[in-house]
Amino acid sequence: MSAPSIATAKEVFDLVSDDLLAIELEFNQQAQSEVAVIRDIARYLIAGGGKRIRPLLLLLGTKALGFTGDSRIRLGAVVEMLHTATLVHDDIIDDAQTRRGQPSANTTWGASKCVLAGDWLYMQSFHTALQERNFHILDLLIGLTQQMVEGELLQMQKLGHLINEEEYFDLIFRKTAMLFKVSMQLGASLAGSPDAIEQQLGEYGRNLGLAFQIVDDVLDLTGEESTLGKPAASDLREGKATLAVIHALERGTGAEREAIRTVLADRDFTRVKHATILEILRHHGSIEYAMDAARAYAEAARQSIADLPAADAEAAKALRALQWVPGYVTDRDR
Amino acid sequence: MSAPSIATAKEVFDLVSDDLLAIELEFNQQAQSEVAVIRDIARYLIAGGGKRIRPLLLLLGTKALGFTGDSRIRLGAVVEMLHTATLVHDDIIDDAQTRRGQPSANTTWGASKCVLAGDWLYMQSFHTALQERNFHILDLLIGLTQQMVEGELLQMQKLGHLINEEEYFDLIFRKTAMLFKVSMQLGASLAGSPDAIEQQLGEYGRNLGLAFQIVDDVLDLTGEESTLGKPAASDLREGKATLAVIHALERGTGAEREAIRTVLADRDFTRVKHATILEILRHHGSIEYAMDAARAYAEAARQSIADLPAADAEAAKALRALQWVPGYVTDRDR
Repeated sequence: MSAPSIATAKEVFDLVSDDLLAIELEFNQQAQSEVAVIRDIARYLIAGGGKRIRPLLLLLGTKALGFTGDSRIRLGAVVEMLHTATLVHDDIIDDAQTRRGQPSANTTWGASKCVLAGDWLYMQSFHTALQERNFHILDLLIGLTQQMVEGELLQMQKLGHLINEEEYFDLIFRKTAMLFKVSMQLGASLAGSPDAIEQQLGEYGRNLGLAFQIVDDVLDLTGEESTLGKPAASDLREGKATLAVIHALERGTGAEREAIRTVLADRDFTRVKHATILEILRHHGSIEYAMDAARAYAEAARQSIADLPAADAEAAKALRALQWVPGYVTDRDR
Repeated sequence: MSAPSIATAKEVFDLVSDDLLAIELEFNQQAQSEVAVIRDIARYLIAGGGKRIRPLLLLLGTKALGFTGDSRIRLGAVVEMLHTATLVHDDIIDDAQTRRGQPSANTTWGASKCVLAGDWLYMQSFHTALQERNFHILDLLIGLTQQMVEGELLQMQKLGHLINEEEYFDLIFRKTAMLFKVSMQLGASLAGSPDAIEQQLGEYGRNLGLAFQIVDDVLDLTGEESTLGKPAASDLREGKATLAVIHALERGTGAEREAIRTVLADRDFTRVKHATILEILRHHGSIEYAMDAARAYAEAARQSIADLPAADAEAAKALRALQWVPGYVTDRDR
C-alpha cells in the first residue's frame, strides 16, 4: 500500500485535544501528595508547560492501533511525569537557573527538596503504571529510566571534552530518543499488538527522538534567549559538544578547533565570543549538516510506519498525524 | 502455645551466615553498570558495610515460614539496595561529610553524580524486584519508597523547629520502620502466606523499626564520634529534635527549653554546649524515657509473632532468632 498522506496541524489538534486535556487532568491528579511541598513543586512543574510531545505520541500510537481504553490517559500522564522527574534532577545537576522561561524548581525550592521531589515523581510514575498490572509495561519503564540516568551520568563525564558522533548519538538516544521510543511501544503494548508492530512503532519513536534532540541542540546554538526560555548556547556554557559543533571540530582549522575547545573548557564566552563560534559553524555548513541529519531521521521515522495498515477511519487519521509529527519536530523554532 | 525461647547471637549467625554472604554477592552483582562511575559509587557503598539488618529480617521471616527459594536472596539484596539509595540522597540533602566512619559518597564524587547514582540504585532495585513477576511485591516496594521520600521531605520542613511526639513517630515510621515492616512482609509474600500472617510479620517489623530508630537517635545524642562513625549529636547539629529531646522540652524549665531551642536553631554548639544539653536530658530522665520506649516497642515486636506456629525445626530456629533481634537492637552501642 502507499504511504499515508500527511495531516495538517489543525487535524492533529482536533484528533487529540480532548485526550491531551484528560492527560493534563490526570497528571494534576497524580501530583497529589499529603506533603505540601511535593504538591507545590509538582503543580509548578505542570503549570510550567512543555510541548507534551511524549503523551501525544502515545495517544497517536494507541489510536493508530484502534485502542481506546482509559489506560492511554494514565500512561500518557506517566510518560510526561517520568520526563518531568528527569528534568528536575537534570536541572539540579546543571545548576540551571531557568526552565521554559521561568525560574527552575531548584532555584525556587533549593536543590535538596528538588532531589526528593524528583524521587517522588519517579515513584508516582511507577505507582501509576503499576495499576495496569502489566509486567511488560513496567519492564519498559524501569529499563528506560535506567538508560536515561546512565545517559545523564555519561554526559557529565564528557562535559568540557571533545566527543565524536558515535558518543553524541549514544547520549541523545539515552537522554531523549529512548523515551520517545518507549512512549510508542507503550501504545502498542496497550493495544495488545504483536511484537513486530511494537518494534515498528518503537523504531518510529527512536528516529523521531533523535531528530527531535538534534533540532533542540541546533536551536540551543542559534536561538535567542527570549525564544528558548533559557540563555542562548546553554550547551556550550555547560561544556556540551553537540552535533554541529562536533562537525565543525572535525573540519575546522587549528585555530577554529582551538576556539571551540576554549569555550568548552571555559564554559563561558569570555575568551571566545558566541558570535565567533556561530561564524565557524556557518563557515563549515555545520548547522545545515546537523539539520540534514535531523531531517533524515524524521524521514526514517515516517518510513518506519509507512506500511502500517489502518483498522478504521480513526486509525487512518492517527497514522496521518504520525506522518505529520516529524515535520513539526524539524520545522519548529523553539 | 508458649512464646518461643530466645536464641543466642551465635545461633542466629550460624542460621543465616551463608544466606547473608549470598546476598552480599547478589548485591555486588546487581551493582554492575556499563557506566564506570555507577560501578565505583555502588562498590564503595557496598564495601562501606552496614548492619544488613533489613536483609537479615527478610531471611529470618522467610525461614520462619519455611520458604527456601532463591528469591529470598534477590529480595534481600533489593531491600539493602533501596536502603542504600535513600542514604545516598539523604547524605546529599544533609550535606553529610561522613557515613560509617568514611567520607560520604557525596564528599567523594560530588552531589551531582550522587543524585544520579541514587536514582540508578532505586531503578536497579525495582528492576531486580520485577524479576519476581509479583505485583504485590512491587506494590509494597513502590509504596514504601514514596513513604520514605515523603518522610525525608517532612523532616526537612521540620528542621530547626520543635516537634511533638506524634510528629516524631510519624517521621521515624516513614524513614525507618516502614522498610523494616516491608522487609518482613516481603518474606511472607514470597512464602505465599495468608494476609493475616503477612500482617503479623509486618507488625513485628514496624515495632522493631521504631525501636531501632529510637535507639539510633539516643546513640546519636550520647555516643562518641569514634563509635558512631560521624560527629556526635549530628541530629542536633542538623536541627533535628528526637524523642529524648522532645521529652526534655515538654518537662524543662524556661531556661532549659530556651537552651534546646537555641541549639536547634543554631545547628551548632557555639552558644550552648553539647554537655549542657546532655545534662538537661539526664536531669529529666529523658534518655531513659526514650530507651524505655524503645524497649517497649522491642517487646511489642516479640509479642507480634509470639503465637506463630513453626512448620519444622528450621522454622523454629528462625522464630527463636526473631525473638533475639529486638534485644540486639536495644542493647547495641552503635
